[in-house]
Amino acid sequence: MKKILLVPDSFKGVLSSLEICTIMEERIHAHCPDAQVIPIPVADGGEGSVDAFLTASGGEKVTLPAKGPYFEDIQSFYGLVDQGKTAVIEMAACAGLPLAGTRRCVAEATTYGVGLLIRDAAHRGCSKIILGLGGSATNDFGAGAAAALGVRFIDQAGDAFIPTGGTLSKIACIDLRSVDAALKAVELVTMCDIDNPLYGETGAALVFAPQKGAGPAMARFLDGQLRSVAERVRRDLGRDVAHIPGAGAAGGMGGGMAAFFGSRLERGIETVLDTAHFEPRAIGADLVFTGEGRLDTQSLRGKAVIGVARRAKKLGIPVIALVGDIGEAIEAVYDQGLWGVFSINRVSLPFEQNRLRSRSDLALTMDNLLRFLKRIEQ
Amino acid sequence: MKKILLVPDSFKGVLSSLEICTIMEERIHAHCPDAQVIPIPVADGGEGSVDAFLTASGGEKVTLPAKGPYFEDIQSFYGLVDQGKTAVIEMAACAGLPLAGTRRCVAEATTYGVGLLIRDAAHRGCSKIILGLGGSATNDFGAGAAAALGVRFIDQAGDAFIPTGGTLSKIACIDLRSVDAALKAVELVTMCDIDNPLYGETGAALVFAPQKGAGPAMARFLDGQLRSVAERVRRDLGRDVAHIPGAGAAGGMGGGMAAFFGSRLERGIETVLDTAHFEPRAIGADLVFTGEGRLDTQSLRGKAVIGVARRAKKLGIPVIALVGDIGEAIEAVYDQGLWGVFSINRVSLPFEQNRLRSRSDLALTMDNLLRFLKRIEQ
Repeated sequence: MKKILLVPDSFKGVLSSLEICTIMEERIHAHCPDAQVIPIPVADGGEGSVDAFLTASGGEKVTLPAKGPYFEDIQSFYGLVDQGKTAVIEMAACAGLPLAGTRRCVAEATTYGVGLLIRDAAHRGCSKIILGLGGSATNDFGAGAAAALGVRFIDQAGDAFIPTGGTLSKIACIDLRSVDAALKAVELVTMCDIDNPLYGETGAALVFAPQKGAGPAMARFLDGQLRSVAERVRRDLGRDVAHIPGAGAAGGMGGGMAAFFGSRLERGIETVLDTAHFEPRAIGADLVFTGEGRLDTQSLRGKAVIGVARRAKKLGIPVIALVGDIGEAIEAVYDQGLWGVFSINRVSLPFEQNRLRSRSDLALTMDNLLRFLKRIEQ
Repeated sequence: MKKILLVPDSFKGVLSSLEICTIMEERIHAHCPDAQVIPIPVADGGEGSVDAFLTASGGEKVTLPAKGPYFEDIQSFYGLVDQGKTAVIEMAACAGLPLAGTRRCVAEATTYGVGLLIRDAAHRGCSKIILGLGGSATNDFGAGAAAALGVRFIDQAGDAFIPTGGTLSKIACIDLRSVDAALKAVELVTMCDIDNPLYGETGAALVFAPQKGAGPAMARFLDGQLRSVAERVRRDLGRDVAHIPGAGAAGGMGGGMAAFFGSRLERGIETVLDTAHFEPRAIGADLVFTGEGRLDTQSLRGKAVIGVARRAKKLGIPVIALVGDIGEAIEAVYDQGLWGVFSINRVSLPFEQNRLRSRSDLALTMDNLLRFLKRIEQ
C-alpha cells in the first residue's frame, strides 16, 4: 500500500478525529514505512475544528483580540485554508463552555466575540467562511455575533442593544441595513452535527441549556426567549428558521446565522471533503480509512463514514471503516461504498471501561487489519 | 471463494464448535451459494466430542448398553470414523455429570461404563480409540474403566474389587495380567483440554471435585486417594503419572489411562486434524476459518487456532480467526500462519451480556468479513 487517506469522524466523547488520524498514521508507518498518508480529520464544528481543518487542508492560524462569553477581552483565533480564501472559525473559540469557567450564567452569555472573528475574516478578503458550531456556553441565537457584524436590535424604547439569551424577547425590531458590507461578498457556511430545531422539547434550551448551568425553570425561560426571537424574525425578516434541522445548535446560533445572514447549515463532512480537495488528493490512493463512534442505520443519514464512502466509491477506492460499536442492520452501508466495517472492541467490557482502552484498541485493530491487508496484497 | 474449511474451537461456555460451524456455514452459503464448505469442528474431549468427530470426519454412531456413573444400566454410544478403523468415545457418555442427576456422590462414582465402551470398540476391531475426557462426575482415576478392561485391583485381604474415588487407597496391588487381549492391538489416545496434574492444589480433586458435589473436606479426602493410587502405580507398575499435564483431567482418568494402558494424553487439535484428514481435504481451499473464545499468548501453546494455522501455512492457505476476546501481545500468532484475527465483539458490553448475543454477533461478523473478502476478490 503506497497511498492511504484517513478520513475518520470523532468517536464522540472518546477520541477526536485528529487523535484517531494520529494513531492510524503511526500504525500505518509501522507496517508500511514508505506509505504516503493523507490525514483528513473530520471537523464536527466544535472545539478542535480549526485544528482539524488545518491538518486536513494545510493553512495558518490567525490569532487576534476578541471577546469571551461574558464580553471579556480574550485572545482568540481562527484558521485560514485554501490559500487564504477560506476562513474556518469555531464558535467555541470565543463562546465555548471552557471559556465560561465556573461562571455559568447562560442567560447572559454572548456570541459577540464570534462576530468579531467573522468580521476580521471578511475584512481580510476571505470569500468563504466556515463557522463551526458546538460546545457553546451561550443561548443567544447568535444575536451577539450578529450585533458585532452590524445587525441592529432595537428595544421597545427605540434603543439599540446587544441581546443575550435572557433578553431576546426585548427585541422589538431587527434592522439589517447596517450589516458589515464586507460580509456581502462572503459565503457563510455554518457547520453543526446535530439536527435539533430552535425551540421546543428537542430545542436548544430544553436539551442543552442544562449542560450550561441552567436549571429547569431557566431552561423553560430561555426556550420562551427563543420562541420570541423566532417570531420577531418571522415578522421583521420574513424568514422561518425555527424548524431548520440544526437551528438549535450552539444555543440557537444555527438558527440565527440562517435568519440574519441566510447562512446554509451543513453537516460537516461535505464541507470538510470539499475544503480538503478530497477528490484530486484521493486519486491513486489504495485505501481510505474512515470511522465513527457507532455505525448504525443513522450513519446513512449524511454522517461522515457514508459521506466518505460515497465519494470514494465514485473514484473506485476501497473504504474501510473502523468504528466503536456496530449496530444492527448495517447491510445498506455496503451499497454506499464501504468495503469493510471493523469494530475496535476486542474484549467484552462495558463502554465505561472500553472507552479507557480506546487508543490501544484502535491501534491494535489497525495492526491486525494492516497485517491482514499486507498478506492479501502479496 | 469456492472451497472453505471451518476448524473452530468452541467458545468455552458460550458456543460449541459444532454450533460455530453451523453459523459459519450458513453465512458462507448466504454470500457464496456455490462454495464448498468443509466443517471440522474441534472436539475438546467433553460432551459433544463424538458428534464433533462425526461431523468432521463422517462415520456412524454405535449405541449399546453400558453402565452409568453409579453402575446403573444405561444406553450409551460412541462414534466410528475412518471407515470403522477409529472409535471416538466421550467419557461423559457413561460418566458425565448430567448422568449423575441430583446424586452427587463423587467418591462413589465410577468410569466403569467407559471401560465397556472401550472394550466394545476394541472387540469390533478398531485399531485406534480416541477417548475424550471432560465433564465427568467421577474422581476414580479411571480405575472403574480399567477394571472393566481387565485390570485387577486387589485389596489388603487379597480380594479383587472395583475402586471408586473414595476407595483408591484400598488398592494393595495392581495386576495388569488379565487386561483384555483385544486392547493390545489398539492405539489408545486420550484427549483432554486441561493441563492439571493428578493431585495437589491444581489437581483433579481440589480443583474439580467441588463442581461434582464435594465439600472442602471431601475434596481433600479425594486428593489423598489420588496421591495414594499414584504411589501404588509407581510401586507396582513403575510409572509416574502424577505430573503428566492432563493427568488430573476427568477425575484423574487422564493419569489412569497413562498408568494402566500407556495411553498418550493429547490436546484435541492434532488428533482432530489427523482424524479428519485435514491436509488432503484442505488442498485447493481458498480459506480456513478458525476461532476460539479468547486469543492470547496462551493460544500459542498448542491450542486449536495455532494448530490449524501451522498446518494451513504449510499448504499456503490463508487462515482467519474469529474469536471472542483478543488479548494483548498477539503479534506472534501472525508468524504461525494466521492472516487475520477478528473479534466478534461489536458493542461495548460486559461479557455476561455479550455472551447472549454471541450467535448473532458471530453471524454478523461473518457477514462483514465475507462481504469484505468478496470485494477484495473482485
